[in-house]
Amino acid sequence: MYAIAIHGGAGALPAQGLSIERQRLYHDGLAAALDCGYAVLERGGSSLDAVTAAVRVLEDDPLFNSARGAALTREGGAELDAALMDGHTLRAGAVATVRHVKNPIELARRVMEKSRHVLLVGAGAEEFALEEGFELVPNAYFRTAERHEELEHLRSGRTVSELMPSPQGTVGAVARDAAGHLAAATSTGGMANKRPGRVGDSPIIGAGTYAKDGVCAVSATGHGEYFMRLVAAHHIAASVEYRGVGLTAAVRETLHERLRDLGGTGGIIAVDGEGHICLDFTTEGMFRAARDSKGLRVVASGAATR
Amino acid sequence: MYAIAIHGGAGALPAQGLSIERQRLYHDGLAAALDCGYAVLERGGSSLDAVTAAVRVLEDDPLFNSARGAALTREGGAELDAALMDGHTLRAGAVATVRHVKNPIELARRVMEKSRHVLLVGAGAEEFALEEGFELVPNAYFRTAERHEELEHLRSGRTVSELMPSPQGTVGAVARDAAGHLAAATSTGGMANKRPGRVGDSPIIGAGTYAKDGVCAVSATGHGEYFMRLVAAHHIAASVEYRGVGLTAAVRETLHERLRDLGGTGGIIAVDGEGHICLDFTTEGMFRAARDSKGLRVVASGAATR
Repeated sequence: MYAIAIHGGAGALPAQGLSIERQRLYHDGLAAALDCGYAVLERGGSSLDAVTAAVRVLEDDPLFNSARGAALTREGGAELDAALMDGHTLRAGAVATVRHVKNPIELARRVMEKSRHVLLVGAGAEEFALEEGFELVPNAYFRTAERHEELEHLRSGRTVSELMPSPQGTVGAVARDAAGHLAAATSTGGMANKRPGRVGDSPIIGAGTYAKDGVCAVSATGHGEYFMRLVAAHHIAASVEYRGVGLTAAVRETLHERLRDLGGTGGIIAVDGEGHICLDFTTEGMFRAARDSKGLRVVASGAATR
Repeated sequence: MYAIAIHGGAGALPAQGLSIERQRLYHDGLAAALDCGYAVLERGGSSLDAVTAAVRVLEDDPLFNSARGAALTREGGAELDAALMDGHTLRAGAVATVRHVKNPIELARRVMEKSRHVLLVGAGAEEFALEEGFELVPNAYFRTAERHEELEHLRSGRTVSELMPSPQGTVGAVARDAAGHLAAATSTGGMANKRPGRVGDSPIIGAGTYAKDGVCAVSATGHGEYFMRLVAAHHIAASVEYRGVGLTAAVRETLHERLRDLGGTGGIIAVDGEGHICLDFTTEGMFRAARDSKGLRVVASGAATR
């Protein structure tokens, strides 16, 4: 049994709904990332390689809020955060507020594998990237016309839902490989119109990203500050491990009770030790997809039971 | 019942032991911070005010690794991290890699109270500080001759324990006030000779700092990367809340089993919902102190049962 799930952000849907054409573009992007990650699992690769590969595809796709296509800071720049965790060894790597690394998820992985550290931020993270032979790209590489338009809307006090939907939140992936190992990865441009230097839940191990073999792997999307205050991803894992509740119930309680009680909304993708997938959200929609070796294959965006 | 505990770093003791004179200086510094925080509780103040006040005293004291007296990066600069959490509301604020804010714990508190965010890093955090009327200080304010000497030792491949002991780790405080509310605060210069941009567990909610009313407040010190991978502070809280183990047992298992199994060492101070204090560490020593309204008052540094 092996399985992978991904998300491409959660948030409000436009009042008029997604156009068929627009929805198709997003679903195609999700499907490409899903199948890329699934192919790694299918050929016997690790869950860590699968989530890295899937997130990399979403980072490169300008439709999603990570790397190319990232939401912009209030000063109009792209500041990128990413993290991943290996449930087998509990090793983790993360980067935050990087501005010139094409695939932040690959830098996060390098932090995990080659540095003594878990989290590097800002210019120090980019210094490490250069030492490791990463090629830097101009910040303009990440900035799309659509994100500039979104920022202009926000600056003028209009809400994003009046726009064509540029997903808020993040992208992420969770997987269980045939050997039973779990992994999670998350990457984001953060909140549109954010203050430079703001770091959300995505690169915080335990908040937006967490994995532990035999328990679960979790990636979150939504209003990051609430996930940080709840230590949401680890709370889900602790609920599964110590409260004897299943993954679906643990995710449900965290999102629909704890997060809601604080005033936050968002979504979670998760997979448990047996490869069961959970996709849940309290927003109107969440771009999401999942596939497993038993034949499950789903790509969705609107409200639904999974 | 009200109570406060503080720490001033954990690590190896010098082979020849601490000189009496040196130990007195550290104990005086700890006592000053302890009594400053305790005075807040005694006059009916909040646990949040108490931990902020205690940590501020330790930040200003050049003997401890936070703010003035911070351990230096491999490039010889001071980069400061701090966080605090209010167990009553689960609000939290944190800053990382700030270089010019005299009291990072006060900036973390301002992030919690005045921004929409939980964590701000680098220049963005300092921009926020300026907007909020904080006066910036030169980076040289934080750098002491002793820390420069420590860095030279590390650069030349000698170990820190050959030095007069400059505590590794962090400073922190946890408290329960008379109203039963819990709070935790942590502040650090991080690991000596660290890579610029490295962020440890101190400013990560759930890793080095966590508080939840009725459960516990926790502040960690030690090898931060291991605390991050374990989501240690939240793991302790989840163990108390969901596994039905007491705080002392939860801290003990996290430090002496989970952290040790990963290869990490460090210390924890914590207080539970009833005001019982736990001070534990797997290093040779930890600078620590505690005081409660039942008459407990302890200031210690070497190996001991509390």
